[in-house]
Amino acid sequence: MKRSKKTRQQELQETIQTTPFITDEELARQFDVSIQTIRLDRTELSIPELRERIKSVAELGWQETVKALPIEEVIGEVVDLELDRRAISILDIKQEHVFSRNNIARGHHLFAQANSLAVAVINDELALTARSRIEFTRQVNLGERVIAHAEVQGEDEKGRSIVLVHSFVEDEEVFTGSFEMFRSNQ
Amino acid sequence: MKRSKKTRQQELQETIQTTPFITDEELARQFDVSIQTIRLDRTELSIPELRERIKSVAELGWQETVKALPIEEVIGEVVDLELDRRAISILDIKQEHVFSRNNIARGHHLFAQANSLAVAVINDELALTARSRIEFTRQVNLGERVIAHAEVQGEDEKGRSIVLVHSFVEDEEVFTGSFEMFRSNQ
Repeated sequence: MKRSKKTRQQELQETIQTTPFITDEELARQFDVSIQTIRLDRTELSIPELRERIKSVAELGWQETVKALPIEEVIGEVVDLELDRRAISILDIKQEHVFSRNNIARGHHLFAQANSLAVAVINDELALTARSRIEFTRQVNLGERVIAHAEVQGEDEKGRSIVLVHSFVEDEEVFTGSFEMFRSNQ
Repeated sequence: MKRSKKTRQQELQETIQTTPFITDEELARQFDVSIQTIRLDRTELSIPELRERIKSVAELGWQETVKALPIEEVIGEVVDLELDRRAISILDIKQEHVFSRNNIARGHHLFAQANSLAVAVINDELALTARSRIEFTRQVNLGERVIAHAEVQGEDEKGRSIVLVHSFVEDEEVFTGSFEMFRSNQ
């Protein structure tokens, strides 16, 4: 049975409140409606689009300091950080990030943004990547802005921190990775 | 039952002939003897160490041309290439590749070497990484030389090429990755 519009909008509001970085695509999948319906719902509920939601979080400012590496060694600009919980960074795809032949962003730059964010979010003097599974879900082109969103998922059986990173261009997911991080206080 | 020394040395010689880039560690595991025994066997059989074996292959020269990207866009120096089969590259770890704090090589540079080699080995005008699983098996330090060895494993059920990359510092494996490559002639 499909939800009524009222129920859907109520649940939608709650979902976005608890997971503000969820994309319209993911919401459409979750609620089993079209992306257009989600957009209409957001408009009626005055919920800004993902890009605006990210910006508003970033504008609140963040007081925490990256511990595992000097902040200038993070690839991309960190706009949000809560150590051992979550972090967000922005990377603008420029000429030096793309294949010269087709202006498609090279995988290792998206990886570098995500991986260095996974290091930065760890609340420890030493954080090294042990293992990772990644997926490039759509190609990224010259001039696009990639927003990476890292979330610490807790520890595995070896005491390593698991960090999940999702990277987006506007509302589209372009990269996803899970990083198993070794840290010195294990 | 353990093999006799004669049998072991015979089998060792055959193994190295068919898989010249196998490390002493792997051989020791395979033959269930110590690394010292493998080294002694190699000396008695006049089989050079891995580094020398790689160099001798590289010196034979390679006539094939990288197709999927301009060769200067490969991270590391390609020293061997047989399209759609195998490739080898060398990356010397310099100051720009390490964390300033501890001189440990940053993961994304090892990833970039391996991933760009996985692109380079594909015999196609377009090769993009779809998915990857990687493992950093020991940390790499400033001044070390990383030799990456890519092997095309064939295709998966979606027609994507699977490329396995193993990277070594001397005889020690430091990185391993499998890359699922999308190519234009699928």
